[in-house]
Amino acid sequence: MSNILLAGGAGFIGSHLADRFIDSGHKVFCADKFIMGDGNIERLRLNPNFVLIHAELADESQVQKIFELGAVDGGIDAVYHLAANSDIQKGGKEPGIDFNDTLLTTRALLEGMRTHNVKNLFFASTSAVYGEKDEALNETTGDLRPVSYYGGCKLASEALISSYVSMCDMNAVVFRFPNVIGPRLTHGVIYDFIRKLQKDNTQLEILGNGKQCKPYIYVLDLVEAIVKLTDSFYNCENPKDKKDNPLAHEEIYNLSIEGLGTTVTRIAEIVVEEMGLSNVAFNYTGGDRGWKGDVPKFEYDISKALSTGWKPKYSSEEAVRQSVRDAINSAAKRT
Amino acid sequence: MSNILLAGGAGFIGSHLADRFIDSGHKVFCADKFIMGDGNIERLRLNPNFVLIHAELADESQVQKIFELGAVDGGIDAVYHLAANSDIQKGGKEPGIDFNDTLLTTRALLEGMRTHNVKNLFFASTSAVYGEKDEALNETTGDLRPVSYYGGCKLASEALISSYVSMCDMNAVVFRFPNVIGPRLTHGVIYDFIRKLQKDNTQLEILGNGKQCKPYIYVLDLVEAIVKLTDSFYNCENPKDKKDNPLAHEEIYNLSIEGLGTTVTRIAEIVVEEMGLSNVAFNYTGGDRGWKGDVPKFEYDISKALSTGWKPKYSSEEAVRQSVRDAINSAAKRT
Repeated sequence: MSNILLAGGAGFIGSHLADRFIDSGHKVFCADKFIMGDGNIERLRLNPNFVLIHAELADESQVQKIFELGAVDGGIDAVYHLAANSDIQKGGKEPGIDFNDTLLTTRALLEGMRTHNVKNLFFASTSAVYGEKDEALNETTGDLRPVSYYGGCKLASEALISSYVSMCDMNAVVFRFPNVIGPRLTHGVIYDFIRKLQKDNTQLEILGNGKQCKPYIYVLDLVEAIVKLTDSFYNCENPKDKKDNPLAHEEIYNLSIEGLGTTVTRIAEIVVEEMGLSNVAFNYTGGDRGWKGDVPKFEYDISKALSTGWKPKYSSEEAVRQSVRDAINSAAKRT
Repeated sequence: MSNILLAGGAGFIGSHLADRFIDSGHKVFCADKFIMGDGNIERLRLNPNFVLIHAELADESQVQKIFELGAVDGGIDAVYHLAANSDIQKGGKEPGIDFNDTLLTTRALLEGMRTHNVKNLFFASTSAVYGEKDEALNETTGDLRPVSYYGGCKLASEALISSYVSMCDMNAVVFRFPNVIGPRLTHGVIYDFIRKLQKDNTQLEILGNGKQCKPYIYVLDLVEAIVKLTDSFYNCENPKDKKDNPLAHEEIYNLSIEGLGTTVTRIAEIVVEEMGLSNVAFNYTGGDRGWKGDVPKFEYDISKALSTGWKPKYSSEEAVRQSVRDAINSAAKRT
């Protein structure tokens, strides 16, 4: 059993990870500022291994107190940092949001780890660190030029992590997520389409030209990868001498599905199908992207992740269809 | 004539750039917190085109005021951001120094530019963004893993700049400096060796094994490159449609000398020679690097910079010799 500090643990991905850690018998210190409420972690609240902490994770003094709390309990063994602004369009209008929620949280957590001698970090990064590139992206692709504040703050976080890994002999696993979907989704194209069609089921406004094409991963496939790859990394006998080789302390993975991504128009078709609608008019706003800062197309080379033996269950289209069903079921339960 | 905001303009490199801009007839708003004093800009203080501003550039409200001051004068045309912690060893002991002086200054300046609609930025980055790599580094080298807080905060700054360039249609030129030396040097191996030998001219302590080997560029060669490459970039007719191509807004250059770098032992020999000493015992502290976070060896591919027509006058060894002479002359003048 480990003591895990799960930053952003009440969020979409974080809460699925919390479920998984609790089910595996770990103690979870779930720290969040509950921008999205606390509905996602409702079933965990009374679990004795689940400690709920309401905190502004960009505030170093509050983060220090969380590590002190962990120290009383034998110390934090690993930090899983999934705290971030998840509303990229909103962040595009006010760069302070990503700076605070995405970058300053990283800085505060790294300082907490440094001063409390905590060595193991998982960081949720993103494909947005690459910016717009034509080639299939792998972990050694260079000349990264993020085009959104979100991508910029995630890449800046990675840069800080790299320096702390080396200076403080930490171990870090960084995943660059593609679009992640599934139960508890609160943003993004699937969520938007369902909401719009619930209001008016005769037509659907689609941002851009609908040809934007990205890989979508099902959240439980992602959680499986996080657990598998961090666990083996933290626990492994060091394959190289870590002292002399700072690179051995950190692994970066592109995480995604196998095969092709899904276009926005195809997502619209699946949503319409799964909602049992027909004759819905698609109205495109035009242009090659949904909003400024959006990367309309990307493709991942995930051979590094696959080489670990991990394998996603869902393809991109299957993940989309399943997520649409999850969302419709969840809406049906609420009404 | 342009209005130039020169952040860190009282520092080693910044003050040489200030000299150059004033000599070219520009108006310079020199903002600095004078950690190193104001000796470097003494000759400029009474110049009517030189505005001296004492400010904490990590503080967004202070930076906003500087842009307001510029606005009264017709607005800032370009920001040259050279403010940073320059004492890398000191920063290694307290990560807050680089975070504040190197990263938060970037964030505050970018916000000032965004809110005052200033479009042109030069940023002083560093070879330390690459971390430890065996190959000759060019601008598209991937998998950057800085090993010092300094390198981490410079790379994080680059990430933020990339996102602002795209989101706010800014133009940015980023130089990744090698070791920079010349008149007004206040840190680094040449400075340290002279100081140590002034105290005791019979022996010299050398950090590491002396085989650390880096390229050293003479500061006036660097200033020449900054002026030449930013000027052509800001003023050029856009070669591509910048609106649709965020990459066209930003150029990154590795800047360095031609040919090989200089080892620490060779620098020691040159210092001893130029100081007119002999029979100095070299005492090595051992290990392959001077301190934690140091990158003991790197080599730059500067073909991109050379393709612009710029060419450094000094080789690495010539730059070292000239800088030693500069330092000895300057010490002689003070006494």
